[in-house]
Amino acid sequence: MGSPEKISSLQNPRLKQLVKLRDRRPRDEAGVFLVEGYREIRRALEKKVPLQELYFAPDWFLGENEPALLAQAEAAGARLFELSKEAFAKVAYRERPDGLLAVAPQWRRRLEDLALPATPFLLVVEAIEKPGNLGTILRSADAAGCHAVIVCDPVTDIFNPNVVRASTGVLFSVPLVVDESPRVLAWLRERRIRTVATTPAAEKIYSDVDLRGPLAVVMGSEQYGLSEFWLAHADTPVRIPMAGQADSLNVAMATIITLFEAVRQRS
Amino acid sequence: MGSPEKISSLQNPRLKQLVKLRDRRPRDEAGVFLVEGYREIRRALEKKVPLQELYFAPDWFLGENEPALLAQAEAAGARLFELSKEAFAKVAYRERPDGLLAVAPQWRRRLEDLALPATPFLLVVEAIEKPGNLGTILRSADAAGCHAVIVCDPVTDIFNPNVVRASTGVLFSVPLVVDESPRVLAWLRERRIRTVATTPAAEKIYSDVDLRGPLAVVMGSEQYGLSEFWLAHADTPVRIPMAGQADSLNVAMATIITLFEAVRQRS
Repeated sequence: MGSPEKISSLQNPRLKQLVKLRDRRPRDEAGVFLVEGYREIRRALEKKVPLQELYFAPDWFLGENEPALLAQAEAAGARLFELSKEAFAKVAYRERPDGLLAVAPQWRRRLEDLALPATPFLLVVEAIEKPGNLGTILRSADAAGCHAVIVCDPVTDIFNPNVVRASTGVLFSVPLVVDESPRVLAWLRERRIRTVATTPAAEKIYSDVDLRGPLAVVMGSEQYGLSEFWLAHADTPVRIPMAGQADSLNVAMATIITLFEAVRQRS
Repeated sequence: MGSPEKISSLQNPRLKQLVKLRDRRPRDEAGVFLVEGYREIRRALEKKVPLQELYFAPDWFLGENEPALLAQAEAAGARLFELSKEAFAKVAYRERPDGLLAVAPQWRRRLEDLALPATPFLLVVEAIEKPGNLGTILRSADAAGCHAVIVCDPVTDIFNPNVVRASTGVLFSVPLVVDESPRVLAWLRERRIRTVATTPAAEKIYSDVDLRGPLAVVMGSEQYGLSEFWLAHADTPVRIPMAGQADSLNVAMATIITLFEAVRQRS
């Protein structure tokens, strides 16, 4: 490892910029986003994400493997900065920091960029509001082996620090596209990918429906559920039977139930 | 509604006591716990939980239905206190308070207290560490129609404010017992309830196993998974196949997948 620049002044302009990157506009202007935490940074490096900067503070390290991670990041082209304990506390987004914070370039993938197998298995989510839910949904899609996640009409920026965090870095491994619902529907239809959309108003139960073949599971937003557009255009509406309180399943829970039923049927 | 006592001084001893109740020891000493938020308080009232005190601050109200809720709580015996905006901000546990905070009595249910149907469907969780996970697991058990949740060797207090919150008040509807693993196992065996325990080391896939009949799904803790005890004694170990990152499913996600596969088979 070379000699990283050291930062201890809380007035350092780099620190101020890192704090600004928690908000969307400065993130978009700079074309970058924050990746905090050992696991998340490791996954970014595994997926060859070209980290631009890596800020670290040994006083916050939790394990033994941090120096190896720093060396790996530096070898991959990241510029390293060593921070004092106080300086890192200022830029850390998490309540319990682990002394590692990176800056990565944003990317945009289009529908046309997706390389899909003959029998695609996709997840389409509409207008999810809470970054934590979007991150959890990405984790579920990764675990279920979805070939891509398509976010329609987004309310939440996919580069929000809470998305990165709740996804535990899976954001770097699941192909993710952001687009408008009508374009997504047209694209799915062109490829003869069947859309199965969950809504409490459906008659059919999700597990009584054939979820094999080219499939896109469509999930609505937290507060409003599926939009009129997808209610009108989805091939098969399905519901999840619920025994308890009417609203005891949230969108992330409904997503994982539906995805893993598809996994079961497809295996 | 009568004339509730008004509190605006931040030095009021009642406010200090409310803040103390965030910690377990003062909670256990007083035998009470905090229930914050409209939905959670409504569910407590629906389930006839005898709320002792209800603190409210109209400046924080989000909707129109709060006065009706207050009247209902008062009719059920709760003592009302009206707080200034600042006073409520001091006692609110949530980041975005909605002006409602109640104090409810703790309860203890024993295994012997559970009234089970002929074909019980139970969830057993071991030593869950994060209150948010325990709350989410309670929600899943409620949605899946589990007859009870049994928490073994708890690390997290079931009356932690984050459990109440993440459970969205389902804590009041799902029968919940806390006990030690050997006692729980003996009780299950006596009743011939089969234990199906999830562990990545299992050979069988959860959906290839018969989950009908008297069933207890057993889940390990976040960090350590299933304990040696349950690994040795559970009737059927099963695993959830995962396509993505090794740790992309957390315990709450694994729980809901397994419970809803059981629901599917049992329906």
